[in-house]
Amino acid sequence: MNMVELIGKKKRGGALTDAELQWLVRGVADDSIPDYQLSAWLMAVCLKGMSPEETLALTLAMARSGDTLDLSSLQGVKGDKHSTGGVGDKTTLIVAPVVTACGMTVAKMSGRGLGHTGGTVDKLESIPGVSTSLSAERFVDIVRRIGLCVAGQSGELAPADKKLYALRDVTATVDSPALIAASVMSKKLAAGADCILLDVKTGSGAFMKTVEEAEAVAGAMVDIGARASRSCAAVITDMDVPLGRAVGNALEVREALQTLRGAGPEDLTNVSLMLCARLLELAAGRDASFGVRADGCEAAARKALADGSALEKFLEMIEALGGDAAVLREPDGLPRAELVHEVRALRSGVVTRMNAEGVGMASVLLGAGRLTKADGIDPAAGIILCKKTEETVREGETLALLHTSSGELARRGEEAFREAVSIGDEPPEPRPLVYRLIRGMEAQ
Amino acid sequence: MNMVELIGKKKRGGALTDAELQWLVRGVADDSIPDYQLSAWLMAVCLKGMSPEETLALTLAMARSGDTLDLSSLQGVKGDKHSTGGVGDKTTLIVAPVVTACGMTVAKMSGRGLGHTGGTVDKLESIPGVSTSLSAERFVDIVRRIGLCVAGQSGELAPADKKLYALRDVTATVDSPALIAASVMSKKLAAGADCILLDVKTGSGAFMKTVEEAEAVAGAMVDIGARASRSCAAVITDMDVPLGRAVGNALEVREALQTLRGAGPEDLTNVSLMLCARLLELAAGRDASFGVRADGCEAAARKALADGSALEKFLEMIEALGGDAAVLREPDGLPRAELVHEVRALRSGVVTRMNAEGVGMASVLLGAGRLTKADGIDPAAGIILCKKTEETVREGETLALLHTSSGELARRGEEAFREAVSIGDEPPEPRPLVYRLIRGMEAQ
Repeated sequence: MNMVELIGKKKRGGALTDAELQWLVRGVADDSIPDYQLSAWLMAVCLKGMSPEETLALTLAMARSGDTLDLSSLQGVKGDKHSTGGVGDKTTLIVAPVVTACGMTVAKMSGRGLGHTGGTVDKLESIPGVSTSLSAERFVDIVRRIGLCVAGQSGELAPADKKLYALRDVTATVDSPALIAASVMSKKLAAGADCILLDVKTGSGAFMKTVEEAEAVAGAMVDIGARASRSCAAVITDMDVPLGRAVGNALEVREALQTLRGAGPEDLTNVSLMLCARLLELAAGRDASFGVRADGCEAAARKALADGSALEKFLEMIEALGGDAAVLREPDGLPRAELVHEVRALRSGVVTRMNAEGVGMASVLLGAGRLTKADGIDPAAGIILCKKTEETVREGETLALLHTSSGELARRGEEAFREAVSIGDEPPEPRPLVYRLIRGMEAQ
Repeated sequence: MNMVELIGKKKRGGALTDAELQWLVRGVADDSIPDYQLSAWLMAVCLKGMSPEETLALTLAMARSGDTLDLSSLQGVKGDKHSTGGVGDKTTLIVAPVVTACGMTVAKMSGRGLGHTGGTVDKLESIPGVSTSLSAERFVDIVRRIGLCVAGQSGELAPADKKLYALRDVTATVDSPALIAASVMSKKLAAGADCILLDVKTGSGAFMKTVEEAEAVAGAMVDIGARASRSCAAVITDMDVPLGRAVGNALEVREALQTLRGAGPEDLTNVSLMLCARLLELAAGRDASFGVRADGCEAAARKALADGSALEKFLEMIEALGGDAAVLREPDGLPRAELVHEVRALRSGVVTRMNAEGVGMASVLLGAGRLTKADGIDPAAGIILCKKTEETVREGETLALLHTSSGELARRGEEAFREAVSIGDEPPEPRPLVYRLIRGMEAQ
């Protein structure tokens, strides 16, 4: 095969065959296709699209380019959940133990935060003693023992995706629904779960700024899942405003614990329960012997929160990952910032805008995140939002608490935070928390 | 400036500014922009196009990326002619001396052949003693002395174009009318002529296979010329069948000499005279004191052939380039092949097809051309076409004479030649020699 011919075929709007895409992905993995040819192909894909068959073939080839996790030795219906990334999105810490308490088996690999978005692995590692770097054997063993493990990637999942993603980032070829979908799903398929729930974020803090963009990506991902014989659904949820009131690693763990105790913020609780219900429905639809019926999923999730079984599952997992669950009892022993700086409202009115990307970047400046992969983070840093969009505020009232390590970082964080927030006279148009559910049709 | 942003702008269909394109071309010339970003931009240009303003800005920036030839010290109207490349296209050897004999000043830099297309420099160097590698000073000096010089590139014209071209070749981004036009015109503008006639070939042996593709490229080139204040026109001519009956370097020089003596093949003579007339018309339109009036151009060209003045000009140039003009008197002393192999018709009928690219590749196999830039060539090798499309042939009659250096090369050449030719019962639809003239409107 000849890369110039494959680029030309895509440029003319043609569809590459499975064999051609397999050859291309092998060439990415072994560096035999030069970057300048790959980037020309990526741009042609952005402008000409890929058929569902091509997107699946690309995804499968990338999924097979590295290690794959074999979950076949595990009992039960294996579930996984993925968020396209947001600010204050700690739903994995809630959804994973809830659905495990309801009878699913959850083996989930998560990533670290980059830029304004957080990552579950950073959140977990803010808990003293917890390490999420596990061998595949230890990971599977924890799942077998307690039905649940959320950890960092073990081995190298979809290394071809990693290389292509790095190239897309520097060639303005990131925003193709087919490429985004193939990138996410290659890792999900390699990670081996039967049921995959995708939380596709939309709004100012999300990669997909509009509902239409989110729908295109969600549709492509669900299509891949169905064609690869997974039970797969996507929910499009709002990320115009941060989810919950806590942004930053230890702060978010604390809020997740509150939510697992039934005392979390309303938006976070509702979105988490909705995600639990959708994931349990996938399990009920896949396996008639699953312990929860399709029409009882939301009730089962609420019960797991109310009876403390989800919290217990979470604490069990923390112990399995090397943490001391006692640290998480109240008052908790999570890291606390050296300095808590109050940001006060400069006028009275109603919060009309709280740009999630801006809040996320303010949190990064406080020390909670990283701008490049090499940066270190401060697990205690972050923001508590005392007011959010649609809420009224009086002049001088506290808008937010900035948790950080120095006055200089607090000053920079406050400047960025104020940029992200507007107070006006008229309340803004309310936005829904959940826009749409997109279900996969399994391939015939 | 940031290349990722410029790629994104073009991807969304936007137009880059002059400053952005100048920055980009500087980045090509000094290697500060990586190839993988350039190729993503090139693909976006192929699929989204460039505005005429962008095409001009790219052309000018590439023209200024290296040496430029200063012809201002030369008398008269300076003319140049460019062919997009064909098989058997020796018109430069005829047109340049004819228009010089009619009063133009011709300072033309030519290239070598590559693939199935020939190059004027290779043809000239098949004449014993001739060297076309001249310094810019010697080149301009020859033009000043005899009004005419056709030579290889002196110095480095448009090095940014050279780099971009090499990248386009390996990323399936060659066939963009705007990029083709910018590539050709950057070299033409750097070479300094006032009047530029472009011979855009179309058909099986041309890069532009259809008249529509040829028109798009011709229109873009003429537009650039006009915006850059050059008198510029393009003619779209046929290259479905080789031009004339000779293909190969010394063979083509011999046919050009026959034509300059008034005894050339009809198609070659007619196309050459038409090109002369169009180029002389540009000179007449540009300079009211030019010695030929616009309505007398074709007659003046015919006269220069008939009275031998064009032939004398050609011989003067050969002497100036180090050749011995006596070698070109009849019988000539041009190199002759060791072996002349006859290809005979396997059936009677009419030649329905003589694929020019296929004939060109057969000639390359005989030793007349090169597949890579590093290959050497045999100046005597090539093909004499005894029959061409639309001509009748009897079984056993000679179709062509293959000039080469060994029986093995003759065998391979014959195989390739036979592939390129079809004989049938019904004559094919005749094709015109000349399709269209596209004149430039000078920018206001």
